[in-house]
Amino acid sequence: MTTVLEVNLVILELRLCQREASIIVEALINEVIAEKLDIENISSTSNTIRIADLGCASGTNTIFATQNIIEVVEKLYRSKGFESKIPEFQVLFNDLPTNDFNTLFTSSLPSENNYFVAAVPGSFHGRLFPESSLHIVHCSCGLHWLSKVPEEILNKDSPAWNKGKIYYTSASDQVADAYASQFDRDVDNFLNARAVEMVSGGLMLLLTIAAADGVSRSEMPQGWVHDAFGSSLMDMAKEGLISEAKVDSFNVPIYIVRPNDMVRAVERNGCFSIERMQLTDPLLKIDEPLDMHASVTHTRAALGGLIAKHFGIEKHFESEIMDEMFDRFDKKAVVFSTMEPRYKKNIVLFVTLKRK
Amino acid sequence: MTTVLEVNLVILELRLCQREASIIVEALINEVIAEKLDIENISSTSNTIRIADLGCASGTNTIFATQNIIEVVEKLYRSKGFESKIPEFQVLFNDLPTNDFNTLFTSSLPSENNYFVAAVPGSFHGRLFPESSLHIVHCSCGLHWLSKVPEEILNKDSPAWNKGKIYYTSASDQVADAYASQFDRDVDNFLNARAVEMVSGGLMLLLTIAAADGVSRSEMPQGWVHDAFGSSLMDMAKEGLISEAKVDSFNVPIYIVRPNDMVRAVERNGCFSIERMQLTDPLLKIDEPLDMHASVTHTRAALGGLIAKHFGIEKHFESEIMDEMFDRFDKKAVVFSTMEPRYKKNIVLFVTLKRK
Repeated sequence: MTTVLEVNLVILELRLCQREASIIVEALINEVIAEKLDIENISSTSNTIRIADLGCASGTNTIFATQNIIEVVEKLYRSKGFESKIPEFQVLFNDLPTNDFNTLFTSSLPSENNYFVAAVPGSFHGRLFPESSLHIVHCSCGLHWLSKVPEEILNKDSPAWNKGKIYYTSASDQVADAYASQFDRDVDNFLNARAVEMVSGGLMLLLTIAAADGVSRSEMPQGWVHDAFGSSLMDMAKEGLISEAKVDSFNVPIYIVRPNDMVRAVERNGCFSIERMQLTDPLLKIDEPLDMHASVTHTRAALGGLIAKHFGIEKHFESEIMDEMFDRFDKKAVVFSTMEPRYKKNIVLFVTLKRK
Repeated sequence: MTTVLEVNLVILELRLCQREASIIVEALINEVIAEKLDIENISSTSNTIRIADLGCASGTNTIFATQNIIEVVEKLYRSKGFESKIPEFQVLFNDLPTNDFNTLFTSSLPSENNYFVAAVPGSFHGRLFPESSLHIVHCSCGLHWLSKVPEEILNKDSPAWNKGKIYYTSASDQVADAYASQFDRDVDNFLNARAVEMVSGGLMLLLTIAAADGVSRSEMPQGWVHDAFGSSLMDMAKEGLISEAKVDSFNVPIYIVRPNDMVRAVERNGCFSIERMQLTDPLLKIDEPLDMHASVTHTRAALGGLIAKHFGIEKHFESEIMDEMFDRFDKKAVVFSTMEPRYKKNIVLFVTLKRK
């Protein structure tokens, strides 16, 4: 099984999410915490505010986000006259057990913090924290990662078999449905676990790659890029350079989330209210061309290990086959550098939920 | 500064502490939890029992101890008719940020647990956890490690300069006093931090290498072994093989704790009651000879990095100088293999404190 963390950041996601997105979303988070966090209630029941950061990776990006959250909460306490009751903060950094927590602790975290640090290994699709222990949950660019590639798209006998493609946006409806169903199962597991772990009144701040409800699958730029890579792989398979069966069984486990997916998931769960949901555009310079060469290089660094494992390639940093894959990808992807600005808009979804 | 973790396990400690000691001490822990843990109070105030394991290293040994603690607490809930109120457990594994937490998460921990896991990086001589968040604190073979070598014993102009030795048990009173004062400062910091972090009624279970109050420094076998190594190093310095100044500035940051040290520390702190304090003997086969060759090999594995760094030795696994150091140490240490049983007794201190 390909793990979520092995597949790390994919082209557009690399540009859309993480630090750049965080800067844009910081303002949204600040606003939503100031409006929605009920500090009177929290300060009467706890001396500690626990913040979970789900999918922290090595922390480089998410540490800024959690520090910002702490600053906003402290400011809120002061502005409401609760200065003497400012709580202690504990940030619980979560990612899969195979994540490099050593780097998080030794390189990413500042040596002096105004909060307590803990790392929690495990999948956020299941329980990770004790009952009613979390006040704020932050998950930036985590929830769109599927826990696994949907089984039916790997099954030759299924109508959802995703032959010749590595993604769902230009595939058959059956493939797209399989992705959507997997996302539904995953987000249900995610919300069920958090519903137990969060205190009443706790806030959840989610950021995912997204598309507006009205946008068709074929209009999603995240899909174009995966298709360009898939097409490069298929060309190579047809030339006998790599195994076609291996291309057929390779799929990118990322789902492009629509607002409606989240609305329905929250309704199914029943324990949260939607306090805010908006599509946003985290690209700082929306009219400038994208540097697709750099993006392809990043993708090779991020996906190289997974691809090498899947295709049975040894020494993938020096592999001619890998060079070929990414050279071809680079040539195909470069056309997206001048992508129309409208395709760069509304590609990130910011959702704030409150535990009832 | 030499960090506590770089210096890992030293000869006798290797035999006296960790897994073997845990087996012996397990019975003591089971007894003390059954007698002293006030589950009626805990179950009325919290749905979660948080257990901190301080100085966990890669977890191989302490995981058994914490799992045992959880089993005993669950048994206690059942035996007292609180079966329906059995809480969730969270184990917070602590060690210095440079500890290998990745190995703890990927190799040591079972993939399925009946408790939530978190890792907390930092020195246990300072605050690590939020206020009133811990119910049980377990620290096996951690507290006797000094946070640093006392400064005065490194100062040529001080009467406490520890010239020609690497330990305090056969050194001047000034050196011994410097070690004792450093331990006092460290244990004060330790207890002050835990006093804030533990709930009222919380239990602290401590295990340290020790000597009875009446035993003179020169009778402590832990000291003999360090002296044997120090003497090997001094021989080599006299022969010009290594720098004498480097030997003078190398000191093992371990303090052999006497019951009285703990009694006085608990009194100075004032927030804990001593529920149990006893010297014990964790060696399973007290009449059998010790395998000192194996112990020297383990010591090289554990101390090699630190010694290489201190003496400026590159590639210490292939170093002739290191071979020489440990060959000489081996020859000197072998005499302790037939150590009289009386010297193997009462060398571990088990202390149970309760937060008032």
